[in-house]
Amino acid sequence: MQQVTIGIDIGGTNTVFGIIDQTGNILGRGRIPTTGHLQIETYLEALAMAINTCLEGVNKDIELMGIGIGAPNGNYYEGAIKFAPNLVWKGIIPLKQLVEKHFPNTTIVVDNDANAAAIGEMIYGAAKGMKDFILITLGTGVGSGIVVDGKLVHGHDGFAGELGHTVVTPEGRLCTCGRKGCLEAYAAARGVVQTARELVAQAGFAGLLGDIEKITPKDIFEAAQQGDVIALQTFRETGKALGRKLSDAICYTSPQAIFILGGIASAGTYLFEPTQYYIDKFTLNLFNGKVQLLPSGLDAGNAAILGAGALVWQELNINA
Amino acid sequence: MQQVTIGIDIGGTNTVFGIIDQTGNILGRGRIPTTGHLQIETYLEALAMAINTCLEGVNKDIELMGIGIGAPNGNYYEGAIKFAPNLVWKGIIPLKQLVEKHFPNTTIVVDNDANAAAIGEMIYGAAKGMKDFILITLGTGVGSGIVVDGKLVHGHDGFAGELGHTVVTPEGRLCTCGRKGCLEAYAAARGVVQTARELVAQAGFAGLLGDIEKITPKDIFEAAQQGDVIALQTFRETGKALGRKLSDAICYTSPQAIFILGGIASAGTYLFEPTQYYIDKFTLNLFNGKVQLLPSGLDAGNAAILGAGALVWQELNINA
Repeated sequence: MQQVTIGIDIGGTNTVFGIIDQTGNILGRGRIPTTGHLQIETYLEALAMAINTCLEGVNKDIELMGIGIGAPNGNYYEGAIKFAPNLVWKGIIPLKQLVEKHFPNTTIVVDNDANAAAIGEMIYGAAKGMKDFILITLGTGVGSGIVVDGKLVHGHDGFAGELGHTVVTPEGRLCTCGRKGCLEAYAAARGVVQTARELVAQAGFAGLLGDIEKITPKDIFEAAQQGDVIALQTFRETGKALGRKLSDAICYTSPQAIFILGGIASAGTYLFEPTQYYIDKFTLNLFNGKVQLLPSGLDAGNAAILGAGALVWQELNINA
Repeated sequence: MQQVTIGIDIGGTNTVFGIIDQTGNILGRGRIPTTGHLQIETYLEALAMAINTCLEGVNKDIELMGIGIGAPNGNYYEGAIKFAPNLVWKGIIPLKQLVEKHFPNTTIVVDNDANAAAIGEMIYGAAKGMKDFILITLGTGVGSGIVVDGKLVHGHDGFAGELGHTVVTPEGRLCTCGRKGCLEAYAAARGVVQTARELVAQAGFAGLLGDIEKITPKDIFEAAQQGDVIALQTFRETGKALGRKLSDAICYTSPQAIFILGGIASAGTYLFEPTQYYIDKFTLNLFNGKVQLLPSGLDAGNAAILGAGALVWQELNINA
């Protein structure tokens, strides 16, 4: 009998899930659209049906240990999604309670997607054996999961780890949160694009970036690969903002490593090199040279479900 | 038989200690100069002698549960003082090991002074019953102790919680650490004095502050009590720098409360009001109104030894 968990990642557009064993093998997987269900109940019915179909398809003797769910604004303490701006279901969604109806007597853990990713990294990825580290997700937003002494930091209300909304530059760029100068306004997709546009405006030419009104981080990455000066400078500026705030982050929890994953992180060395440079430049002497900046050790396509599934092992205190 | 701990606070000038019971009563206390002993060994001999004299003087049946030591640059994991700039003993001092010679078979815990203060606050002070909070010390420097889920955050190397060296203003004031714009350069004694001097220079008059070359934070506090505009503005500016960084701090560990203690904190409402104002102004909506800004609940004269003594209860997992 093989012990498995189900990892569910609820994204704004699609929901993906997998049946995962203790070594991180995915024994089955599926997906359903997140959108299209105005009621959370009908969405969860569709999801439960897809999961049960997938479970039946597994060709092994398995024991389901629990279900882990990574969701935007997922709250660990309450097992709920709270006021997620990018989901159609508004207010407080008592997710754990609703999922229990479909999977009674099962351990169900809800957390936010970045926290799930951090635990995935610890159990299946490059943070194996580490007790103190930070994981940063760079994509549409900037998320983070902070692990201290082998445990996720949830804080008083379950919303700890909002590094995307710590401030790089007082009175800097307007952030989607309404405040100014947040890291997210510089290091998430929209921020990287804005940096490129500002640099193009300063330079007076767009180089390989072409139509700057339509560019995406992927376009900037591809231009950087061809040596485009503005594209390269865009990642240097992004790395500078990140480096500044990661130097601050090191002062808080003194991590052994900081992992970066997500769409923007796929810029690889174009982003990691300047970020490392600015971490070295800005970090307090006491910590200098002690903290590794690393890419995630998880396959990008599986990181979200591995992380969600790993929440169960952490909850049950099982060393997967 | 009453269980007690000994709390030792090693300061740059004096070392104070107390024999403390589980409710925070100080059954005996003493002090010796920290300076004047070029060798750590002779200093510890003098300290052990003073402690033993004090123990003999206690008029009760007591059981010594351990010794807690708060020291500048004290490292919990190594039980050592590491490269403390303000102590005469240089390099790495294996304090725990050296103290054990005088008190064999005794639990000995070494930590930095701000961490000790945080645990003191949790066991004897205003953080009783709280599991997630931050304590900030404002004095010669800015120290901090971060408590997550009822435990001190030590981080990978034992030096977590250096909030004084997170950056308020990139390229701002030069800090004693050699970097620019650190919170310590604005909110520690020297920073508060510098703010007053800058405001006097801008205004072109010194008001009640008198000789600004010689002013201390205490002078500024007394001038504020008399309604001096520049003194009041000095604390507002200090509160602004603090408020900015405490808003960042909230994003990391989402504490229930932030405590401020130390010399500068005795400015009371002149400091707390603007700090609260700027926390409210700068904090991410998600956390707004959730975090209490509070003065320490410990008597200032006893906080250091209570904190050091409390390290033992935390170490032994005893709920004092």
